[in-house]
Amino acid sequence: MLVNGEQRDTIAIMDRGFQYGDGLFETIEVRENTPIFLEQHLQRLNRDSQRLYLPKFDLNVSRAEISQLCENAGDAVLKIIITRGTGGRGYRQPENIKPTRMLSLHPFPDYPQSYYTDGIVARICNTRLGLNPTLAGMKHLNRLEQILARAEWQDNLIHEGIMLDFNGRVIEGTMTNLFYAKNSELFTSSLNLCGIAGILRGWVFEKMRVMEHNFFVENLFEADEIFVCNSIMGICGVQQIEQQHFSIGDITKKLQFMLEIEKQKQVAL
Amino acid sequence: MLVNGEQRDTIAIMDRGFQYGDGLFETIEVRENTPIFLEQHLQRLNRDSQRLYLPKFDLNVSRAEISQLCENAGDAVLKIIITRGTGGRGYRQPENIKPTRMLSLHPFPDYPQSYYTDGIVARICNTRLGLNPTLAGMKHLNRLEQILARAEWQDNLIHEGIMLDFNGRVIEGTMTNLFYAKNSELFTSSLNLCGIAGILRGWVFEKMRVMEHNFFVENLFEADEIFVCNSIMGICGVQQIEQQHFSIGDITKKLQFMLEIEKQKQVAL
Repeated sequence: MLVNGEQRDTIAIMDRGFQYGDGLFETIEVRENTPIFLEQHLQRLNRDSQRLYLPKFDLNVSRAEISQLCENAGDAVLKIIITRGTGGRGYRQPENIKPTRMLSLHPFPDYPQSYYTDGIVARICNTRLGLNPTLAGMKHLNRLEQILARAEWQDNLIHEGIMLDFNGRVIEGTMTNLFYAKNSELFTSSLNLCGIAGILRGWVFEKMRVMEHNFFVENLFEADEIFVCNSIMGICGVQQIEQQHFSIGDITKKLQFMLEIEKQKQVAL
Repeated sequence: MLVNGEQRDTIAIMDRGFQYGDGLFETIEVRENTPIFLEQHLQRLNRDSQRLYLPKFDLNVSRAEISQLCENAGDAVLKIIITRGTGGRGYRQPENIKPTRMLSLHPFPDYPQSYYTDGIVARICNTRLGLNPTLAGMKHLNRLEQILARAEWQDNLIHEGIMLDFNGRVIEGTMTNLFYAKNSELFTSSLNLCGIAGILRGWVFEKMRVMEHNFFVENLFEADEIFVCNSIMGICGVQQIEQQHFSIGDITKKLQFMLEIEKQKQVAL
């Protein structure tokens, strides 16, 4: 783990990341020493930093540290955390913000192949997402909603929980974005009130026409196919939500194929 | 600073408090080595721990550590942070949760006497509080809303920012709860959708009849008197919000007096 370029496994108690969740994070797939979609992750960090009034950080420093860390990483997960650093009085931020930049490598999770061929099983969470346009879309460090939702089930045969917001709209999984197709049209929830705008979600938008809209569990249950995605799991079809079964559809398979090609291209570069 | 009973000033990077804001905190006035309203703070920690599925913690251990830490503290601020500790995979909590218990002492802020005699000056924040019944009321570590609100102004002549929720209801200050009186009746916002249920707010409820209701900036501007409160500032009348001036009223003065008596009683015990 690197904290502002130094090898450490601790952080100051007074760091505002610890005190208030005052920061952002990224979770990046590393395949054969190559961080996948790195530029997209760094651009999101930069964009969300602006929304949190964090100083612009030096992308070149981050890139240098990341390539150092990933040199012999093989297949791994790279996590980046940026916080507002220490200082300030209470919620008031310090006049000179010196952000904390934390990079860490973790083993790549061993998702079974069946996630991709047969699809995953999901449930509907009771924990709902709060409505907050100010924070919506960002991958910030305030993640109690996801933790409470993920704490709802222990059954390892259930792989993901789907979260609604307090208006009853379907938003996303606890750790994934969610898409569904109906009559060959692809839909996902708009993230203007809550949710995280994932990097892979953005990639899907580049590859296909997607309709962002408000929808409910009933709409989901009438879908022709459903998939979830994030930067680590990639794209997984959903075979079951509660008692309802779904087929892994052509759009899901096509996107999985395209994503694999894209990753191989990035690794080969 | 004490982390699980050991003197340290750092925390593990993998602590879920740092990774996700997965925890709670308390900020307690220490006067003449005595933590004020200590039992109320510990009870709130315990109550909110249950809401976050954190294991019940040993109040006696906490009390012993606190009295050790406060032995020669004089006048100070005691901060307690409880997190879900390290471990788990992603948002999923570990099977055996070993919470992190962090205690730290800080200098007591030198609020000018005028805060109490003349009152404070407040503004209305643009940053709004999200709507989330699941998290409402708790003093948890997800505090980006307060940080963004507090970042709106630098002017030291403005002492507090008043936050509305996304429905336009007045909820609280960035670091205080807010009450107003109209025709000798005392009102405060209900915290069913957002806000922090402060210890001093609870104390006011014990001392006076308070109506919890939904109200708007217009109602506030028609108030006879307004005060804000938290465990460190105590009770401060509000002399001005934006361009509107207010008198420091009898209810505010009476509660200030009663609070001072209460604190002196606790110190003398």
